[in-house]
Amino acid sequence: MNIILVESDEITDNLVHLNDHRAEHIVKVLRSQVGDEVRVGVVNGGKGKGKILNIKTKFPFGVDLDIKIRESQHQVPPLDLILALPRPIMLKRILSQVTALGIGTIHLIQAKRVEKSFWESTIIAENGFKPFLLHGLEQAVDTILPEICLHRKFKPFLEDYYPTIRESYQYHLLAHPGGQNGLPGEIDEKSCRTVFAVGPEGGWVDYEVQKFRQQGFVDCSIGERILKVDTAVVALHARISLLMEKREHIYNQES
Amino acid sequence: MNIILVESDEITDNLVHLNDHRAEHIVKVLRSQVGDEVRVGVVNGGKGKGKILNIKTKFPFGVDLDIKIRESQHQVPPLDLILALPRPIMLKRILSQVTALGIGTIHLIQAKRVEKSFWESTIIAENGFKPFLLHGLEQAVDTILPEICLHRKFKPFLEDYYPTIRESYQYHLLAHPGGQNGLPGEIDEKSCRTVFAVGPEGGWVDYEVQKFRQQGFVDCSIGERILKVDTAVVALHARISLLMEKREHIYNQES
Repeated sequence: MNIILVESDEITDNLVHLNDHRAEHIVKVLRSQVGDEVRVGVVNGGKGKGKILNIKTKFPFGVDLDIKIRESQHQVPPLDLILALPRPIMLKRILSQVTALGIGTIHLIQAKRVEKSFWESTIIAENGFKPFLLHGLEQAVDTILPEICLHRKFKPFLEDYYPTIRESYQYHLLAHPGGQNGLPGEIDEKSCRTVFAVGPEGGWVDYEVQKFRQQGFVDCSIGERILKVDTAVVALHARISLLMEKREHIYNQES
Repeated sequence: MNIILVESDEITDNLVHLNDHRAEHIVKVLRSQVGDEVRVGVVNGGKGKGKILNIKTKFPFGVDLDIKIRESQHQVPPLDLILALPRPIMLKRILSQVTALGIGTIHLIQAKRVEKSFWESTIIAENGFKPFLLHGLEQAVDTILPEICLHRKFKPFLEDYYPTIRESYQYHLLAHPGGQNGLPGEIDEKSCRTVFAVGPEGGWVDYEVQKFRQQGFVDCSIGERILKVDTAVVALHARISLLMEKREHIYNQES
């Protein structure tokens, strides 16, 4: 936890009282003292400092903070993810990892090789994504929660829903082992959003690949090695981010 | 498991008898029948096919294979990793993930912020790396085990050991949040090996950064976000691999 995140409704006149894992972190990990300052952020808001007014060091821990938050600049990361719903334990890990890496929206979708039972899991049924997203934000010192959208049917997602968001992206990438060995070299303009789609264990079926291509998706691959979904998501995020950074670098040199 | 890996001493006259998780995989996941062929590889050897001669479908599973292995071309991945020893659960995950991504040698080293107790863990004490490396190979359809080297003291590793392997690398990269935002743009020649060093949770201390720099390491960073060690390792591996592929691409176009 590299930042203490609080909800705006936990703040009263700049004061926050913490008595959960965040208080425990301040007491046991940071070993902060009264008068110390800790890094604080407001969920979907700004970042700042919290000065420790009181500490109750015995369980249950309690910490009172006087916080100062700077004006926020909501900078949504330029990448979105379409992900065939993975099994719950992997979904949780991926949510934390891509949130730490920086992601705007995560579309969880049905695909042929997604086990139907995954849609009945507790995390989906109870909309229990937030703890894993917060975990990623706390790791990466960010405050802006990614959006999560659920799409329980493949065809309506791509044929009906996707066209309504299509224009927000300049690049539509489909992770597909049969695709090009590398990402398309066409990322060359400033300020574009990119979406990348990662399939289930076993990959997309041909029908799904066709449907993605009809919506303008370009196949991309990260080589011949078959990766687990969580490794593939992080590796693709890293590669696409590097391409986008290098593009900006070139742009800045030219301008 | 995308390839069934066998040890060379399990093979007698091209025949292999499996009665462990590999047999279970063939029976329960692949649902193979007698006469079917499965993808087989020999650990640190070649790849080929195994024809199923017999199947015992009730627990304990048993499968007899008649295997044909092609000549192997030992291609060691062009990347090595220096990693400050992480906690065991994270070490296991990283070993599988980097093996799947492709890695030559993994040097596990001591650093100031590595908890001494990690060196007493079962996986280190019993040299229990192999199952996690095999897991990565089985995922990525590879057969060549990475080498694991343990270095329990930081200074002798960098001052005495590293100079003996230094010449095998063209690029020496040090993951460091204070470093450049991006990797150095100097990767521009064919057929070089690269080593990248990733620190413990909390990062390298100044003394360690100095020592790495004295050995020719160049700071690199993957941006301002603080990542967990496992996410950072995968993201850096992906970025460096992309840079090396693009270098080869340029080379091939020019030649």
